[in-house]
Amino acid sequence: MSIDAARLQPMANAIRALSMDAVEAANSGHPGMPMGMADVATVLFTGHLKFDPAAPGWADRDRFVLSAGHGSMLIYSLLHLTGYAAPTIDDIRNFRKLGSPCAGHPENFLLDGVECTTGPLGQGLAMAVGMAMAERHLNAVFGETLVDHRTWVIAGDGCLMEGINHEAIGLAGHLGLGRLNVLWDDNRITIDGATDLSTSEDIKARYIATGWHVTECDGHDFADIDRALAEAKADPRPSLVACRTVIGKGAPNKQGTSATHGAALGAAEVAAARETLGWTSEPFVIPSDILADWHSAAEPGRAAHGAWAGRLESSPHKAAFEHRMAGHLPEEFSLDDHIAGLLEKPQNIATRKASEIALAAINPQLPETIGGSADLTGSNNTLAGGIGTFNRDNYAGRYVYYGIREFGMAAAMNGMALHGGVIPYGGTFLVFTDYARGAIRLSALQQARVIYVMTHDSIGLGEDGPTHQPIEHLASLRAMPNILVMRPCDAVETAACWDIALRSWETPSVLVLTRQNLPQVLGKDHVMQVELGGYRLKGAEAARKVVLVASGSEVALALECAARLEADGIGADVVSMVCTELFDEQPEGWRYQMLPDDALIVSIEAASTFGWERYTGRDGLNIGIDTFGASAPAGDLFAHFGFTAEAIVPQILNKLNA
Amino acid sequence: MSIDAARLQPMANAIRALSMDAVEAANSGHPGMPMGMADVATVLFTGHLKFDPAAPGWADRDRFVLSAGHGSMLIYSLLHLTGYAAPTIDDIRNFRKLGSPCAGHPENFLLDGVECTTGPLGQGLAMAVGMAMAERHLNAVFGETLVDHRTWVIAGDGCLMEGINHEAIGLAGHLGLGRLNVLWDDNRITIDGATDLSTSEDIKARYIATGWHVTECDGHDFADIDRALAEAKADPRPSLVACRTVIGKGAPNKQGTSATHGAALGAAEVAAARETLGWTSEPFVIPSDILADWHSAAEPGRAAHGAWAGRLESSPHKAAFEHRMAGHLPEEFSLDDHIAGLLEKPQNIATRKASEIALAAINPQLPETIGGSADLTGSNNTLAGGIGTFNRDNYAGRYVYYGIREFGMAAAMNGMALHGGVIPYGGTFLVFTDYARGAIRLSALQQARVIYVMTHDSIGLGEDGPTHQPIEHLASLRAMPNILVMRPCDAVETAACWDIALRSWETPSVLVLTRQNLPQVLGKDHVMQVELGGYRLKGAEAARKVVLVASGSEVALALECAARLEADGIGADVVSMVCTELFDEQPEGWRYQMLPDDALIVSIEAASTFGWERYTGRDGLNIGIDTFGASAPAGDLFAHFGFTAEAIVPQILNKLNA
Repeated sequence: MSIDAARLQPMANAIRALSMDAVEAANSGHPGMPMGMADVATVLFTGHLKFDPAAPGWADRDRFVLSAGHGSMLIYSLLHLTGYAAPTIDDIRNFRKLGSPCAGHPENFLLDGVECTTGPLGQGLAMAVGMAMAERHLNAVFGETLVDHRTWVIAGDGCLMEGINHEAIGLAGHLGLGRLNVLWDDNRITIDGATDLSTSEDIKARYIATGWHVTECDGHDFADIDRALAEAKADPRPSLVACRTVIGKGAPNKQGTSATHGAALGAAEVAAARETLGWTSEPFVIPSDILADWHSAAEPGRAAHGAWAGRLESSPHKAAFEHRMAGHLPEEFSLDDHIAGLLEKPQNIATRKASEIALAAINPQLPETIGGSADLTGSNNTLAGGIGTFNRDNYAGRYVYYGIREFGMAAAMNGMALHGGVIPYGGTFLVFTDYARGAIRLSALQQARVIYVMTHDSIGLGEDGPTHQPIEHLASLRAMPNILVMRPCDAVETAACWDIALRSWETPSVLVLTRQNLPQVLGKDHVMQVELGGYRLKGAEAARKVVLVASGSEVALALECAARLEADGIGADVVSMVCTELFDEQPEGWRYQMLPDDALIVSIEAASTFGWERYTGRDGLNIGIDTFGASAPAGDLFAHFGFTAEAIVPQILNKLNA
Repeated sequence: MSIDAARLQPMANAIRALSMDAVEAANSGHPGMPMGMADVATVLFTGHLKFDPAAPGWADRDRFVLSAGHGSMLIYSLLHLTGYAAPTIDDIRNFRKLGSPCAGHPENFLLDGVECTTGPLGQGLAMAVGMAMAERHLNAVFGETLVDHRTWVIAGDGCLMEGINHEAIGLAGHLGLGRLNVLWDDNRITIDGATDLSTSEDIKARYIATGWHVTECDGHDFADIDRALAEAKADPRPSLVACRTVIGKGAPNKQGTSATHGAALGAAEVAAARETLGWTSEPFVIPSDILADWHSAAEPGRAAHGAWAGRLESSPHKAAFEHRMAGHLPEEFSLDDHIAGLLEKPQNIATRKASEIALAAINPQLPETIGGSADLTGSNNTLAGGIGTFNRDNYAGRYVYYGIREFGMAAAMNGMALHGGVIPYGGTFLVFTDYARGAIRLSALQQARVIYVMTHDSIGLGEDGPTHQPIEHLASLRAMPNILVMRPCDAVETAACWDIALRSWETPSVLVLTRQNLPQVLGKDHVMQVELGGYRLKGAEAARKVVLVASGSEVALALECAARLEADGIGADVVSMVCTELFDEQPEGWRYQMLPDDALIVSIEAASTFGWERYTGRDGLNIGIDTFGASAPAGDLFAHFGFTAEAIVPQILNKLNA
């Protein structure tokens, strides 16, 4: 394709005009990046990106990720100009105002065409790695007649400086994700000033060292940009295109400086920029010829979509493919047999092992699962069910050796879930949710079905000591909106939690699992109650004075305490609080039935007591650990920290007598 | 120095023997790394590291960081063999048992000579960067007669694969920290198997791209190791020494495989290893000649320490240097004048601005502060008090442009605090504590005085939207042991919080600060009460029926609600809960005086309600936000999420009438 710079320049300037006008109207935002990358984005959207604004959910579209999410007006401009139903020009006028889908940073749940939520730097690119993985996997499964698309990223210096960049590009280089192309906005400016204030890195050399193809271009020369993008597409490795740009390009007095990064340019500079760009339209008005040129940019994609739809119609995989991409589980999927087997033959096993045997039942039934671990496969028990390794020689494989890259793994799983067609799960130790927390939050915010398999969930991991023993992690995850934190107490509850996680279409889950063995305590009648989040596992025999509420490994201990109390004539219920978020959603009647006002409520959990007063009140008793752990065998630690019936029951009696 | 391999080999084998014996006795631990790196460590400790076992706190010692902390038996062996008072051989026999200072991973608070707590991968190396920064700064301030030491790191593949490695080495390369030398245990094995299962990176090329000097050696050839370490010392850049090793070296059947990584070798393999190594002593017995050789390794350090002590005695800086290194604040340090000025002339400013003017009063008084920001200097308001930039041309500077490296910044601050002589503080947005959380936890665990300046603390940041608006972050940080989370409500309280943070020798602090302006509400009598964590800002005028508990920006709102209630004849206290951790430490009497049983307790905080029931009980009222935020101007968001007196007061009245 030959490049018509005279036609493209006004198209790019339309992005610049919309961006500076919207930021000016909001008096807030980031004009520098959209103005700097307008030319590159114009070449990408007019000559390389495969998209159809009339069908933003088209499964075989190219994915475009604006990793430098603060430059959100770039993507809003592009979606509007190319003819997506939204954002409308009024949406753009209301940029950064309540109710507008044009939020400060792009949100996948507000606009079609926004493939993922970006803004937390580095994560867009890392999610794109997951999208590219999902693409290769589905291509291997369904063939290139149905799946044959690329993932494009625009990233800034911040995205490349964040630690997650190292994990993401390491994974992409190792996996040989040649359909991933990153356009780096090489403007040499950060918020604090020139990049050389804080970095001296040879970024291109680093990418080459990590198995990437690297090329560069003048980010304001349309032909050169086009040449570089073509080169990126042609190379079998993932590509970094260093686009040398001027931040805020077009604003004559501020361009090239951090002054354009994160604030409105101001009326005078906007006026000067309009003059520099030769842009004479009123704010938010795009001349019809320019708009027509932009609309025509979508034509190749529309044609490609039509051809693809024809191929889908004649494909023997049509039904399976559509079902997978819609995110539905097979109707016949069930863990009932697995659970029935457990009830018949109870297992005294760790819940991480219970998770493994659940996966052995799940993975053969659900070809959409893609598992993995951040180098703790044997500890997380995540490899089960006969799934092969996913690597550059076998994209049909379903198990990913993520390496020691917790954050990169979590972000890649977000990308896979958002791409669709796969359900990712991945493991590490619960304590290392700290490393992945930025991505776990984005799972929740983006409403992505990602399943975190977090093992070694308390001091019960034993000898590895306080750096490896979660204390505050349950509380810190429970405080997060839209995520299910499930800490099952035995093999049956573990299977039920997997079922809940798989069926939670718009909510990520964290399965919190023990290293150590636990007795099986659930009966048949309990199975259906797990989804209530908290339910009675044992009712008081004597007159009820106490309700013991516990989760995971402390449920068996609560049962032991209850037995001792009953022996003293003190009636005690035991409630398994497997998931506080689900319990909190139940009607008040259920919650007060489980946790009545007229009993002493005692929480038992080998973790921070923080948050338990929601259930125990100010007058309850909270058995927990509000310090860091220690290094010793698990049994010694439980005794040391007071997790024995001998230590707990007297405290309950004292409280009852007080 | 010539290398006597015949003498060094048994010394290295002593490490191997102790490591496999201790792991065997514990039936838990990681023998592979200590056995693989025994030869390298022997060359380091006998020929390069400057240390004096009799004076582990000697200020000018070299710092040695075992970043691959799972190989803890390496450092325990070295400390024991070179003659540190601890660990004793009995401590090593009790490796990984309750009460032994030989914990599963090395803990700085259990053993002298363990410079920092390691185990969470990548962070040891990143803390070493901070130590090397502190060294250069103190060298610039006090001269090389007093400060002239190196920082040595042993790191594994995991440390290098973690994202934080990229941030840490980027910072070190940029700052030109030539006295930092990293010995990479290049054994090509991870837990899951060979490194090529998950990575294809050219690590050496990546380090070179980041401004490092790189060399390599045969990690089992003493002369070659010595040559490489000498080369690392001689190069003005930070150095990576790729030490090609065999994991588990000496265990004839398991060496070179992941089987040696994280489990005891087993009796048979230990016996075979003893034979291979020619090691005939009983377990935990070191032949006296080998022990004597090890003790003699400490002699050069002892002599250097003696010479240094002489220089200190004759130094005009002696008193100042010792005071700084002891971590004491100057006796005359005070913020009283600053606070008096605020009381005299109240300020309607954001608490981030209040923090800046507090810093303008602090930094000139405290030359030990080293500030910085992860590329948000103008937003975090962290640059104040006339401190210059810390960079390779000016190590005397006290302000660090950390770049977009939140995790690397936090870890570097840990390293600086543990090095001693400086008090680090650094800023980013509160929401990005997620990125740094692994290091924040290590601040708390390591009892390091690190001060986090976390601004933009709620939906009050406005237009940037949900990715940038903390919701669960206050709760998630409050749940962590040993950290003060302080959310001041005005300029006076902000100054008082800074004072508390600076005086908390063994506890990190998080200052949680607004973007938006807040009225000044504290009076003179309140100032001394801030350290109680929660205190009454306004007492009920009518008969007290309600206590409003709020923090930060919601305190003024609570005062407004109280005024409306009082106008209706309903008495209402207002409590500023500036720091729940400090409040929880107060006697029960104080806590119930502030939050009496006979009033409706209402919490008001623009964040997750999770955890507030500790203060409000099950029957209280929690005004908060349990969903993600949105993008809009701050005022619109506060109204949208119900943070107005109009929205809150009716809920209180309803609750009172229920």
